[in-house]
Amino acid sequence: MSSSPMIIRAAIVGYGNLGKSVEKLIRAQPDMDLVGIFSRRSELDTDTPVFPSAAAADHAQDIDVLFLCLGSATDIPEQAAGYARHFTTVDTYDNHQLIPDHYARMDAAAREGRHVAMISTGWDPGLFSLNRTLAAALFPDAQQNTFWGKGLSQGHSDAVRRVPGVRRGVQYTIPNEDAIVEAKAGRGAEISATSAHVRECYVVADEADHADIREAITTMPDYFAPYDTTVHFISDEVFERDHQGMPHGGHVVTSGDLGGSRSSVEFVLELGSNPDFTAASQVAYGRAAARLTAEGKTGAFTVLEVAPYLLSPVALEELIRRDV
Amino acid sequence: MSSSPMIIRAAIVGYGNLGKSVEKLIRAQPDMDLVGIFSRRSELDTDTPVFPSAAAADHAQDIDVLFLCLGSATDIPEQAAGYARHFTTVDTYDNHQLIPDHYARMDAAAREGRHVAMISTGWDPGLFSLNRTLAAALFPDAQQNTFWGKGLSQGHSDAVRRVPGVRRGVQYTIPNEDAIVEAKAGRGAEISATSAHVRECYVVADEADHADIREAITTMPDYFAPYDTTVHFISDEVFERDHQGMPHGGHVVTSGDLGGSRSSVEFVLELGSNPDFTAASQVAYGRAAARLTAEGKTGAFTVLEVAPYLLSPVALEELIRRDV
Repeated sequence: MSSSPMIIRAAIVGYGNLGKSVEKLIRAQPDMDLVGIFSRRSELDTDTPVFPSAAAADHAQDIDVLFLCLGSATDIPEQAAGYARHFTTVDTYDNHQLIPDHYARMDAAAREGRHVAMISTGWDPGLFSLNRTLAAALFPDAQQNTFWGKGLSQGHSDAVRRVPGVRRGVQYTIPNEDAIVEAKAGRGAEISATSAHVRECYVVADEADHADIREAITTMPDYFAPYDTTVHFISDEVFERDHQGMPHGGHVVTSGDLGGSRSSVEFVLELGSNPDFTAASQVAYGRAAARLTAEGKTGAFTVLEVAPYLLSPVALEELIRRDV
Repeated sequence: MSSSPMIIRAAIVGYGNLGKSVEKLIRAQPDMDLVGIFSRRSELDTDTPVFPSAAAADHAQDIDVLFLCLGSATDIPEQAAGYARHFTTVDTYDNHQLIPDHYARMDAAAREGRHVAMISTGWDPGLFSLNRTLAAALFPDAQQNTFWGKGLSQGHSDAVRRVPGVRRGVQYTIPNEDAIVEAKAGRGAEISATSAHVRECYVVADEADHADIREAITTMPDYFAPYDTTVHFISDEVFERDHQGMPHGGHVVTSGDLGGSRSSVEFVLELGSNPDFTAASQVAYGRAAARLTAEGKTGAFTVLEVAPYLLSPVALEELIRRDV
C-alpha cells in the first residue's frame, strides 16, 4: 500500500482535436510535465515544443508516456506498434471488432521494447467497457444495453444538409427515455437499434421551405424514416449560439435478478465535448501506464486490467481515507 | 493475458440477511462451490453443511475464500482479523471513518497468514468508492456529490411508528431530482444534506387521526422538519403488497470543466434488495480475492486496488472480445 509521488514526463503525437484536448489536460495535471508534441508539420499553433515525428525515437529517454492522438481508421493500425517499441504508449483506438488484433500487435511491440501499451482508453471503448464488465460480473444472468447520446452525429448531420433548402443543419442522436426504463426493468432484450434512440434535427431555412424540408427529412429511408425524428427550425443566431459544440454521451444499463430481487446499475456520461472527455480518460490511463512501467510491467493492457487507484494523482492512502 | 479457469471453494461465516443472500448467489456462480457455513448455532434452516465457527481454522485447507457476513458494529472489528490469519477473506465493513484502521489490522493479519483480505466490498463503501475515485481522476477540479436512495431508512421508519395513532409505517429517503441536476451542472457545492434528499412516509392509521399524524411527522425536529416530507396514508393491503422489501440505491455524480467544456459522470444504483445487491458485490470481489491469492499476492486490498476483469467469471480474452 504505497504510491510514491512521481512526475510523469509526457509527450503527444498528433495534433488534431484530440491532441489539442490532451495538451490542455496534461497541463492541468499536478504530476505531469509536457515535454513536447511530435508532428509531421514543423509549425503548429502552440507554445509547446514541437519535434519532427520521424525523429521521435531520439527522445525516448526523456519521455515516460507518449499519447497517441492519431486516427483509428489508418494512423493507429499503421503507426502505433512502431511507437510502442520505443515508448510506453496510450491510445484511444475505437474499432471494437479489431481491438483483439490491435491488442496482440501492441502487446508484441511493447514487450519487445519492455514498455507498456495501454489501449482503447476513451469512453466507448474505454470507460463504458469497464462498466460493462463490472456490472455484468454482479449478476448471474445480466441484461445489458448501451445507449449513445445525446450526441452530434456527423453522418446524419450531413444527410440533413443535403436536403434542398437547408442552409445549416445538425442532428443529435438521443437515447429513448422509455427504452432506458425498459432496460432497467430487465426488458432490454426487446429493444431494437431503432427503438433505443430518437433523432432531433436543428435546421436553418426559409419559412416557405419548412414543410417540404420536414417531410424530406422524416421520410428519408434508413437515416430517419425508421426513427422517431423531430425537426426544429431555428434562426442563424440560435444556431450559432447553441449548436457549435461536439456534445456526446450515453448510458450503460445493466440489470438482473439476484435470487428473488431485481436491481439495476447505470453509468451515464453527459459530455460537453467529445474530444475533451476522450482526452480526459486517455490522460488518466496515461498516468496508469507510466506507473505500471515504473513497476516493471510490460505488454499491452486494456482498461479492464487497470486497478482504479492508478488513474488518480492522489496517493492510495489518501483515496482510501476520503473515497472509500 | 490469461485467466485460467479455476473452481473457487467458498464458505460463509454469519447467516443473517447478508449471509443468506451470499449463499444463494454463490450457488448461482459458474466457478464457485459452496463448502459450508460457519455459525455459532448448530442448526440453521439450510441444506448447506454447517460447521461450528469455533473450529473454522480446521477447514482452512478446503476453502479458497471465506465470506465474512458479520455485522460492522462489533463482529467485524472483533472477529475479522482472526479469520484473516487462516483464510483469504472478503468483507463488507461499512464504517467509512474507521476503514483505514480496519485496512491496517486486516493487512497485518493477512500477511501473517499469507492470504488476501478484501475489505469493504459492498456498494457504499465499495462500488460507489470505485466510482468516486474513477470519476474524480478524470477532472482537474472535480465537483462530486453522493446521493442515497430510494432507500428504506430504519431509523426514520422507527420515528414514524412512534407517532400516536400510527399502526404501521415506513419511510423512504429519496434523492432530490433537482439537486442531481444541479450537481451535474457543477453547482453541487451548494447542495446541503437536507436539500439533497426528500422523505416519503407510508402510514396505516384510522382516518380520524390522519391530520394529526401528518402534522406530527412533518414538524418532527431533525428527523423530518428540515426536509421536504410527504406522508401517504394507505391500507393494510397496500402496505403488505408494496412495502415489505428493502430497496435502496443512490447516485454518485461527478462533474467538472475540461478546459472550456463541462462534462458529467453519473453512477446510479436502483436496488430491489439492499442485502442481495451488497452480496452480489461481495461475491464478485470474493472471486478477485481468490485469484489474487492464487497469483501469490498477500495483504489487504480495497476495491480501488482490483482490476475489473478479476471480478468476472468470463476469461479476459473473451471480455476483451465482447465488452471492449
